[in-house]
Amino acid sequence: MITVSEYFEGAVKSLGYQSPEGKSTIGVIESGEYEFGTSMHETMLIIEGELEAKLPGNNNWEIFRKGEAFEIDANQSFKVRTSSQTSYLCKYK
Amino acid sequence: MITVSEYFEGAVKSLGYQSPEGKSTIGVIESGEYEFGTSMHETMLIIEGELEAKLPGNNNWEIFRKGEAFEIDANQSFKVRTSSQTSYLCKYK
Repeated sequence: MITVSEYFEGAVKSLGYQSPEGKSTIGVIESGEYEFGTSMHETMLIIEGELEAKLPGNNNWEIFRKGEAFEIDANQSFKVRTSSQTSYLCKYK
Repeated sequence: MITVSEYFEGAVKSLGYQSPEGKSTIGVIESGEYEFGTSMHETMLIIEGELEAKLPGNNNWEIFRKGEAFEIDANQSFKVRTSSQTSYLCKYK
């Protein structure tokens, strides 16, 4: 089962699946700024494009480019913003 | 615009977008064997999981793991098979 999800009126779309290591999603984010909440620990890796993230406990926007990743604990919220379509891999644990 | 596509009755799903370098899709392939055709040159990179591909001009199945890629010219057909959900990035030119 490959689960298609849409958020923010289709500005973020993702495909959920089971990887060898656990639950994963791949997705694409349109230009804009978004706030996400986590229910599990997430590792987010930029596949193509780039985005800025404001991570929990950090007042500054930090830039993440293709191949770079950040982690978020469960039950946190964080913001991302991008000026171009950006694809990501999100791994949950 | 993020384009959701489904193939083989939903066994392959993809999200199409514009990367800084050109048209791209990210997608997930369910367990099974599939034949694809190309209309453009494609570079296919395995994000998670692994698959075997039978590429044009090759009678043997070749295995591609996470982080590995292969290229296919335009107007070719190739087969892939996998025994677990596998995610990929496809770049077109």
